[in-house]
Amino acid sequence: MNGINLAIVGATGAVGRKALEILEKEDLLPIRNLKLLASDRSAGTALNFRGKDYLVEAATPESFNNIDVAIFSAGAGVSLRLAPEAVRKGAVVIDNSSAFRMKEDVPLVVPEVNPDEIRKHKGIIANPNCSTIQMVVVLKPIYDLVGIKRIVVSTYQAVSGTGIEAMEELREQTEQILTNKEIAPKVYPHQIAFNVLPHIDEFDEYGNTREELKMINETKKILNDRNIRVTATTVRVPVFIGHSEAVNVETVEKITVAEVKEILSKAPGVIVNDDPAKNCYPLPAAVAGRNEVFVGRIREDLSIENGINLWIVADNLRKGAAYNAIQIAGYMVANKLI
Amino acid sequence: MNGINLAIVGATGAVGRKALEILEKEDLLPIRNLKLLASDRSAGTALNFRGKDYLVEAATPESFNNIDVAIFSAGAGVSLRLAPEAVRKGAVVIDNSSAFRMKEDVPLVVPEVNPDEIRKHKGIIANPNCSTIQMVVVLKPIYDLVGIKRIVVSTYQAVSGTGIEAMEELREQTEQILTNKEIAPKVYPHQIAFNVLPHIDEFDEYGNTREELKMINETKKILNDRNIRVTATTVRVPVFIGHSEAVNVETVEKITVAEVKEILSKAPGVIVNDDPAKNCYPLPAAVAGRNEVFVGRIREDLSIENGINLWIVADNLRKGAAYNAIQIAGYMVANKLI
Repeated sequence: MNGINLAIVGATGAVGRKALEILEKEDLLPIRNLKLLASDRSAGTALNFRGKDYLVEAATPESFNNIDVAIFSAGAGVSLRLAPEAVRKGAVVIDNSSAFRMKEDVPLVVPEVNPDEIRKHKGIIANPNCSTIQMVVVLKPIYDLVGIKRIVVSTYQAVSGTGIEAMEELREQTEQILTNKEIAPKVYPHQIAFNVLPHIDEFDEYGNTREELKMINETKKILNDRNIRVTATTVRVPVFIGHSEAVNVETVEKITVAEVKEILSKAPGVIVNDDPAKNCYPLPAAVAGRNEVFVGRIREDLSIENGINLWIVADNLRKGAAYNAIQIAGYMVANKLI
Repeated sequence: MNGINLAIVGATGAVGRKALEILEKEDLLPIRNLKLLASDRSAGTALNFRGKDYLVEAATPESFNNIDVAIFSAGAGVSLRLAPEAVRKGAVVIDNSSAFRMKEDVPLVVPEVNPDEIRKHKGIIANPNCSTIQMVVVLKPIYDLVGIKRIVVSTYQAVSGTGIEAMEELREQTEQILTNKEIAPKVYPHQIAFNVLPHIDEFDEYGNTREELKMINETKKILNDRNIRVTATTVRVPVFIGHSEAVNVETVEKITVAEVKEILSKAPGVIVNDDPAKNCYPLPAAVAGRNEVFVGRIREDLSIENGINLWIVADNLRKGAAYNAIQIAGYMVANKLI
């Protein structure tokens, strides 16, 4: 096949634009035809890709005629409505939303962790939540070696996870506060500049956010182990790009810090940045623009017998969303699954 | 006694200035004479207190003649050098630095938690680390009711914990980044604006920061229980005032979320702010200027049998430092210990 016909749904959003940027600069997917789709509101926008202007079209069921792969990044509502239509037209959907992630017959895939699941798809392959992806990329080699009993994770998540309008709100609010002007939060319920919000996505009746439940449930599904225990507190911080996570892991069998460093230094998609004496540890502002997951502050947790602390950082728009989706498509092309 | 003779060492710093602000606005201590002390560099600065200008003097051993209480907030070096001198001159030292906290004969006091320790002092009473204080104020009632086995805490700490120069660096760097100018970190080893740094205080050979070790060791000392297991990851965030903490607690006996809310709503110095359906949870930008410790996002952690998640926020310059020290002095006055 001489390249694929690719559709990007939500092309004008933060993840859609990042996907175009990655596809333009990195030779990850052979593209024959590119179709850019968005809501009615964004239709008509012109986006440049490899020197050519593409007019963004309003996404309809007919948009998916002759499409091989459709990457959806337009929210769960759009995915629920249009992904089944795209599949009906013969496309494979790689969906960045939460719409299908926990469906039993939808593979939830991080290519470094469970690539074989890709082959089991019935039209839709789900891209996990950004905060889950970067955590499981690092935990997988540890899980394989010594097993994981429990994870306690606290996140420090960038506003780009919410979207472009949230990035604008952070910038605008920051300027307003520095110049003693009144602020009027719109995207977030509270001030995000110079503040942290322990609130990502909606709350359930027990006081957990859906973001926290995603980390719990998706981790179990991706590592294919219902017995792993996970608890999460997800927090929005005034950072533009790059999610950080303080991850406390209780392993089944003992693993030393030296062993963790060794297996992670060989792990696919992982970069160990851990030299505290030289002030080296992963930082969101430093990893923005990178496709890998960065880990540092690898320490023994002496409060339990088999405890390890990790600090995990990744570009949430890349490995947490667009790059992971492109990796899945690339795997399908490389393995002639399309 | 017609008021006390009070000295503030480090009067020009973030905590010293906050102590003056609190003493001026709130009737917490009867002050007969006030002496403001600082380093040679800051000596000569004039600070206004209740309408009168005070000239800041360079701190020397002689500064403590006729002083009843000296609140030290000038770093461990100054405390190590001058606190014993102040005690020799007859003053009681309330020390905000880490210099004496773990000494066996120095009480480490949070008035809501272990006020009786104040009576055991031999001249020096240590004020705990800011991140420890706010955590133990909330954990104490839980500890008393059901015991605590293990704590996993991740922090989101404001730059004012470092000092005034760090607050200026955050402001300046933020402006520089928003206007696409070069930044040159001075106070922190990396960019702090729109970034998070998993690095507070120095690293030990095992990769823990001293801030993390403080949270572990001071919690055990204040709750007077060597068997509590604690692990911590302490992180600096681009917030001016207000430390936040995601605290995961494993209790010895079962406690329900309703019970936690009930005992905390009656706990001294604690305000429960927990109504997620109305977007109510503690935020650092909202608690700045308050003396209490705020707790919300009280949830059961289903990953273990007796697990509770808490989100704890306080003004690190107030309850985390100046206010706690003033509370200790106030307790001594009220109980005629001075």
